[in-house]
Amino acid sequence: MLYIIDILGTIAFAISGALVAFDKRMDVFGIFIIAFVTSVGGGTLRDLLIGHTPVGWMNDLTYTYVIIASTIFAISFRSKLNYLRTSLLLFDAIGIGLYTLIGLEKGVELHLHPILCIALGTMTACFGGVIRDILCNEIPVVFRRETIYATCCIMGGMAYFALGALPIDQNIVFLASGAIIIATRLLAVRFKIALPNIYRD
Amino acid sequence: MLYIIDILGTIAFAISGALVAFDKRMDVFGIFIIAFVTSVGGGTLRDLLIGHTPVGWMNDLTYTYVIIASTIFAISFRSKLNYLRTSLLLFDAIGIGLYTLIGLEKGVELHLHPILCIALGTMTACFGGVIRDILCNEIPVVFRRETIYATCCIMGGMAYFALGALPIDQNIVFLASGAIIIATRLLAVRFKIALPNIYRD
Amino acid sequence: MLYIIDILGTIAFAISGALVAFDKRMDVFGIFIIAFVTSVGGGTLRDLLIGHTPVGWMNDLTYTYVIIASTIFAISFRSKLNYLRTSLLLFDAIGIGLYTLIGLEKGVELHLHPILCIALGTMTACFGGVIRDILCNEIPVVFRRETIYATCCIMGGMAYFALGALPIDQNIVFLASGAIIIATRLLAVRFKIALPNIYRD
Repeated sequence: MLYIIDILGTIAFAISGALVAFDKRMDVFGIFIIAFVTSVGGGTLRDLLIGHTPVGWMNDLTYTYVIIASTIFAISFRSKLNYLRTSLLLFDAIGIGLYTLIGLEKGVELHLHPILCIALGTMTACFGGVIRDILCNEIPVVFRRETIYATCCIMGGMAYFALGALPIDQNIVFLASGAIIIATRLLAVRFKIALPNIYRD
Repeated sequence: MLYIIDILGTIAFAISGALVAFDKRMDVFGIFIIAFVTSVGGGTLRDLLIGHTPVGWMNDLTYTYVIIASTIFAISFRSKLNYLRTSLLLFDAIGIGLYTLIGLEKGVELHLHPILCIALGTMTACFGGVIRDILCNEIPVVFRRETIYATCCIMGGMAYFALGALPIDQNIVFLASGAIIIATRLLAVRFKIALPNIYRD
Repeated sequence: MLYIIDILGTIAFAISGALVAFDKRMDVFGIFIIAFVTSVGGGTLRDLLIGHTPVGWMNDLTYTYVIIASTIFAISFRSKLNYLRTSLLLFDAIGIGLYTLIGLEKGVELHLHPILCIALGTMTACFGGVIRDILCNEIPVVFRRETIYATCCIMGGMAYFALGALPIDQNIVFLASGAIIIATRLLAVRFKIALPNIYRD
């Protein structure tokens, strides 16, 4: 079940990467690399920082195959991807929910402080997109004020530790904090919720 | 004492990062991340290259707290930060002096060649700013010809090994080479000293 | 012999990096850093991902000296480098051939799947240029549709495993797949061979 969600998230991230690469008019190789780093870049950075090498995607080729298939799919049907926009948004929200918790639990395994665990989770969910934007020569979208993204991951991570301190089954903690990330993200997109504007104009 | 200097350097780097992020009109999350990578990015890259994981800032949360506080401070008082420009420049110079020596001594511990030790020191001091500029979609300022920055670190590193070969107490070697970095940096800013211009126009 | 080829590749990559840095009007320090990452960036990323630390260039200072010498050479004779363009292209083709196979064989040593080995080889050959372009604030040229570059590495890598499955001496496999990379790259430049255009206009 978790594995299926993970694959859905990988597909959503890969397609989002491919779409950005299209806009930059990259060639097929470039599109694949951008799809790849968008999907696995956050987890790779996390693994590097905590010293888990060879990094994650080298231990299970399924991700590589899924990303190759997603890239081919995106290239073939790119003119029709607009119809899928809502599905993709949903997959993406599910993806960041799961990626955050996967990253966070890696930190828990290493007995790191909750703040660092939440940082690792947020990094896993958000830094694939950051690397994608750097390679595409853009200021990372997650740093700009449009709708909250990283904030959802951070809130979900805090919920994970808050709920974990209560006498609740660990699986329920996992599901509930994942649901918080997904729900806040979808609500943020629906109602255009952003961080407070600190600029005057 | 060293620890206090280290914290002052962290504050100066965090505020310099936050200021660049302001100019790019990032949101609060983006400003914090830029402040964070400016402060700890150089040391993180160094730790990755030599295989010291989990990387530095994961072993002492003080840096994270200081950077959060510096970011909040910078956001709150950004219109008044101009008055602090001289203090910030001083902290920054002290920061690169100390960061260079910390990075250099990590190399010495690993019995690396002096050239590599100096490279690690310079990386520790300068690459936080490089990563900041990449994330902000700018050519890194340290590679451009305005005033010398990395050169001060390299000179201080060379002084460290030159003085270390003399029969001088190691603490004095440390202080003297740190002072060289700070002094050359401040003089370079004051007198606009740059590397020789290799371009004709 | 291999070592000499490796050094020739390092020189070609360093000079190509220095030339890009010139165009961005960087100072001497910036030019050296760009030359350095162009040469060793791909191998460094590979070593980080598989956990080989300290990374490659820290174990043999020859590369650093060669890159320093190449940078000085490029700065001194930059107005005459046009005459060398053909030699540089040849060195570069030889370089990516060898770098691909070096990276690929690192994967084989770790008993990684051939797909991952080819990925490591391609990364070794191509990602120095990617990091160079990121630092110079450009979309990486290897992702854009002009002539094939990474594709040559991937084809050579596939040839390595295809030939390796036949009863052929391993040295011949190495030479033949290296020759395929070099030949396809030179032919691609000569005849402007690119990946199929997926854009309509």
